[in-house]
Amino acid sequence: MLKNLPLEKVYQFLEPGPVVLVTTAAPKAKPNIMTMSWHMMMEFEPPLIGCVISGGNYSFAALTKTKECVIAIPDIDLAEVTTAIGNCTGRSVDKFDKFHLTAAAGNEVAAPLIAECFVNLECRVVDTRFMNKYNMFVLECVAAWIDPAKAKAKTIHHRGYGEFSVDGEIIKLKSKMR
Amino acid sequence: MLKNLPLEKVYQFLEPGPVVLVTTAAPKAKPNIMTMSWHMMMEFEPPLIGCVISGGNYSFAALTKTKECVIAIPDIDLAEVTTAIGNCTGRSVDKFDKFHLTAAAGNEVAAPLIAECFVNLECRVVDTRFMNKYNMFVLECVAAWIDPAKAKAKTIHHRGYGEFSVDGEIIKLKSKMR
Repeated sequence: MLKNLPLEKVYQFLEPGPVVLVTTAAPKAKPNIMTMSWHMMMEFEPPLIGCVISGGNYSFAALTKTKECVIAIPDIDLAEVTTAIGNCTGRSVDKFDKFHLTAAAGNEVAAPLIAECFVNLECRVVDTRFMNKYNMFVLECVAAWIDPAKAKAKTIHHRGYGEFSVDGEIIKLKSKMR
Repeated sequence: MLKNLPLEKVYQFLEPGPVVLVTTAAPKAKPNIMTMSWHMMMEFEPPLIGCVISGGNYSFAALTKTKECVIAIPDIDLAEVTTAIGNCTGRSVDKFDKFHLTAAAGNEVAAPLIAECFVNLECRVVDTRFMNKYNMFVLECVAAWIDPAKAKAKTIHHRGYGEFSVDGEIIKLKSKMR
């Protein structure tokens, strides 16, 4: 059961650099999912997120057209599904169906949440000035969801060519930083 | 002993989202170090890196002026030093001296490498169009170094307020992605 995640806490889930899934819903097409690792936080609140998506990607066109997406964060239990999603294209595959994922309706955008992911971020494209040169989008997160049952979810981090590090020990150090 | 890291492999060290250190060397000032988590890869080769740095930061001014920096990746052994670097400012502290770090000369930029870090990336600012609005820089990595003795280095990933996840298990999944 997904619950509301305060927008001021969104950065805590993306700043560590996990592999994420991105859903889009182009008009008259089935919703699609892609795998993404090239993202960063750009502002705390409202949360701004920069991301780079290959221009040949099926999701690139949908995001360009609809200016909406959901960033869903998978935990280690979804690691194989996450790479499999990156290995095929929404042009020919209904990924929600193929990978037995549950599309859930968000509040703010047409792109679906992925119910199996422990965090879902509804996003709107707010700046496309770097799109032509770098395939980069600036997203604003306008609603966020968390599954409290998976509060200790471990994420995966891509090291290239299908090698991933999984979150290990959690340490706490004295920091003045937010 | 740092050895050359091929530029095509640079993304493999930043894409997982580690906390990094950034050195700068403003004219007539001691070189400085800051801690950074808001970065992403933007291109494989030549490696382009996007990063967001708080405008009030002492390093922001140096980077704006010199258009050069080094991104140094610390491993878990440097976790406490890394947070301590983030807790003070180069305006009043010589961080190389205070934290007993070794500044080493790079090949391409004036900003120093940090010899204790297992990866060092010499970078030049190549695009400042997002600087005013987002404090974002686009960097090109022009030379890269790795310490082969620390090939299995574990990095740290910031989850907010001094909480970090440390790299755990490494897994290998079937992936078509680079």
